[in-house]
Amino acid sequence: MTISKAYADLERRGRIVRHHGLGCFVSPARDREAEEYGIGNGGRTGDRTRDDGSTNGNDRENDAGGSQSPGRNTGQGKTGTRKKFGWQEGFEDYLPRAQLWRNFDYSEAEYSFHLAAIHSGLLPLKEIGEAMTSLVAKRPELMSAYGNFQGDVELREAMTRHLRARGISLSPASLMITSGTQQGIDLVARTFIGPGDAVYLEEPSYTGAIDVFAGRGAEMISVPMDDDGMRIDLLTKLCDRRPPKLIYTVPTFQNPSGVTMSTERRQRLLELARSYRCLIVEDDPFSDLYFHSPPPPSIKSMDKDGHVVYMKSFSKVLAPGCRMACLAAEGDILERLIAAKAASDLGGPLLIQLALLPFISGRYDAYMTGLRSSLRSRMERAARLLKRYAPRGVRWKLPEGGLNLWLELPHSVDIGELYRKASRLGISFLAGNVCYAGEPSTSHIRLCYAQMEEEQMERGLLLLIPLLKEAMKESTG
Amino acid sequence: MTISKAYADLERRGRIVRHHGLGCFVSPARDREAEEYGIGNGGRTGDRTRDDGSTNGNDRENDAGGSQSPGRNTGQGKTGTRKKFGWQEGFEDYLPRAQLWRNFDYSEAEYSFHLAAIHSGLLPLKEIGEAMTSLVAKRPELMSAYGNFQGDVELREAMTRHLRARGISLSPASLMITSGTQQGIDLVARTFIGPGDAVYLEEPSYTGAIDVFAGRGAEMISVPMDDDGMRIDLLTKLCDRRPPKLIYTVPTFQNPSGVTMSTERRQRLLELARSYRCLIVEDDPFSDLYFHSPPPPSIKSMDKDGHVVYMKSFSKVLAPGCRMACLAAEGDILERLIAAKAASDLGGPLLIQLALLPFISGRYDAYMTGLRSSLRSRMERAARLLKRYAPRGVRWKLPEGGLNLWLELPHSVDIGELYRKASRLGISFLAGNVCYAGEPSTSHIRLCYAQMEEEQMERGLLLLIPLLKEAMKESTG
Repeated sequence: MTISKAYADLERRGRIVRHHGLGCFVSPARDREAEEYGIGNGGRTGDRTRDDGSTNGNDRENDAGGSQSPGRNTGQGKTGTRKKFGWQEGFEDYLPRAQLWRNFDYSEAEYSFHLAAIHSGLLPLKEIGEAMTSLVAKRPELMSAYGNFQGDVELREAMTRHLRARGISLSPASLMITSGTQQGIDLVARTFIGPGDAVYLEEPSYTGAIDVFAGRGAEMISVPMDDDGMRIDLLTKLCDRRPPKLIYTVPTFQNPSGVTMSTERRQRLLELARSYRCLIVEDDPFSDLYFHSPPPPSIKSMDKDGHVVYMKSFSKVLAPGCRMACLAAEGDILERLIAAKAASDLGGPLLIQLALLPFISGRYDAYMTGLRSSLRSRMERAARLLKRYAPRGVRWKLPEGGLNLWLELPHSVDIGELYRKASRLGISFLAGNVCYAGEPSTSHIRLCYAQMEEEQMERGLLLLIPLLKEAMKESTG
Repeated sequence: MTISKAYADLERRGRIVRHHGLGCFVSPARDREAEEYGIGNGGRTGDRTRDDGSTNGNDRENDAGGSQSPGRNTGQGKTGTRKKFGWQEGFEDYLPRAQLWRNFDYSEAEYSFHLAAIHSGLLPLKEIGEAMTSLVAKRPELMSAYGNFQGDVELREAMTRHLRARGISLSPASLMITSGTQQGIDLVARTFIGPGDAVYLEEPSYTGAIDVFAGRGAEMISVPMDDDGMRIDLLTKLCDRRPPKLIYTVPTFQNPSGVTMSTERRQRLLELARSYRCLIVEDDPFSDLYFHSPPPPSIKSMDKDGHVVYMKSFSKVLAPGCRMACLAAEGDILERLIAAKAASDLGGPLLIQLALLPFISGRYDAYMTGLRSSLRSRMERAARLLKRYAPRGVRWKLPEGGLNLWLELPHSVDIGELYRKASRLGISFLAGNVCYAGEPSTSHIRLCYAQMEEEQMERGLLLLIPLLKEAMKESTG
């Protein structure tokens, strides 16, 4: 397993310690560099994350803050902090890897390609805002009530209809509202995954999921993909050796690769889960964002025995700052997830749930038609620019949906150096290595073409392309 | 340790299995009764929680729901579910105890004493609503933006001023916004607590904290209290035998007991944490809700070395449904908590953070003066009724602040039976046993006097008192 190799390597270099049988932890005696060195990263990115630290939004505050700014500071502040809270360095934690937030908080990027998000100009914020305003006036008590842990019943009814139109027939009692799919993944992991449990996932996969499973001490096993998605033949062989507890998949317009799993493989995956009596987490951020024809039916729509925990984000395509997704599961599995939600935050804000309700039960489908066409046009503009100007050796597939382009660069390219140079120009992207539970054998970057105004996105690409050329020249030279 | 005894007892009866060294888990082969039997409960409450299940909000939906309603159903539905998703029963989880949500979701109680919450009529919902409406109109992009993981900077600046006025001098960089203090406790637990780590807490303590630490497989050690709060002398002896990783305390108007820790004990507790290089979690829901004089300074205000993670809920006293609290910590400890927040939900809704901002930086103190006087008057009305009508043998202390009355009943009283009878009359309360990490040696119920209109609260008490009498008669008869 690649993860074990990567862990062993990091342990050898003193970056992490293995402990308690729960997994690996950043070494207590770590220095700044080790701290910023995510587990599972190749050596090339150690510098990158450091650079990343200096471009995130928190530095501004530290400048304005008092003398007690936290250890994330560099230079003077850092030294002060070190001495002051010295005892903390030896304080053990269960946080094996925390790349995610470093790879996310780029508030100063002028050309932001890093986040799989939709530009506010494309979102129905006016309508959602009006719904919110009207709720606040008519039902102010919504701000005072603790909600049902599962989420508002009316909203779950609307989601039931929404899902039924997409082949998933469940009752509202089988749904739970979460604070984004990130919370859904986290709830599943904290409920069902513990030290050494086998979690299978696509290679590459969603970085936020990798972090969460790592945090539970899971043994993550990556399964290669081809054009039809996860290689179920390989998965089956791997499972024979090491039975799965959970299989995490983004079957539709996969994040980051954009690949869609074929219907046949979806069925086989479900059969495999049945035979191993394991869970599938089907993370579905993008199925409504197809460019040509609708994607294959969801795995959940074929599930008769409650093996699939299905997650669909609504805030991502409507109002990302509202943090709202739907989780569908059944039986005991759902019951236990509701209990975990209660312990986690006692339920999410009702007002926000109900502010999204009219749009979800009303104009959602019409809006989606327009959004798809806008996104497709952006994607095509980005692809056209890349096709015309990107250096030979940069490879990608034209996505059939979703928000990302997944560019493969020659393995010799120094992505950390590319990242540093790009951020000096105000350009952010996601370095592909964070999408691997183990050591990646390829070099990728992920670009989201939807996060900016269209012209801004084009300007950013035109600035980035010369850096790609330079990086490739240096790597061969 | 009481927890070990309780666990051993449950294991003996097949209610739980011990597993993986991570802690104890509800037995896979459990029946309905075992499932609803919280770990650490005395035998008396097994029935109570079952009853509880039938009054919660989800049953209504199940009636309306389709054929796939989850296993929480009873009767027909339940049997159907059992067969259908039978494989799930053997599916191992890491959820040792999930009482909380059962003790929370009482949407049908007409006289609701169970939740430590403030009636909407006392809350500044109009002002907060206006702020929200104005934000939605002026800054709709707030609904689209992923926020800073730490929370909005301006809000943290306002909270910095708020805390400074209460003796806690920190910069905004030392604060993080969480989805209620429940999430704050959860983040600390998932970051720093693992299997077998020693967590000390008051006996009794906040049930939501107990659940979270149990979920991490902590060894919880309960420390008795007297009128000055946690017995630090006993704590010191216990720590000598078993060094603490973390001490969880609600030092001010403690939940559920209402007791306040003296200044001297706060200092000694901090010294103890320094000498053991452990963390203190200071959970502060109520310090602004004093009835006579302000409580002693917070432990955080005395902390020079970053030993205290301080949590203060703002939504509880302003708009509980908005789920917003502030967590204050320093150095590496804070950094790691921010990483955990990122993996947990990628940050909370910005709009809600900013909607609360004007009130927190503006009229908060003036509002609090009025709220305190309203709450005091309610508390006194409740106490007067109890004093006049409650049977001999029901004992309580007049609280100096907070939202709860903590009534001690003779140990022979069957709280489960009392609970069942009360809920038939539409009355809910919190059964004291859920506030114990181990087996309680006393019988308590917690009543919140602030959750209803004042007259409603009085009517509810007048209905409950005869049930108390009856229960005590039966217990001695």
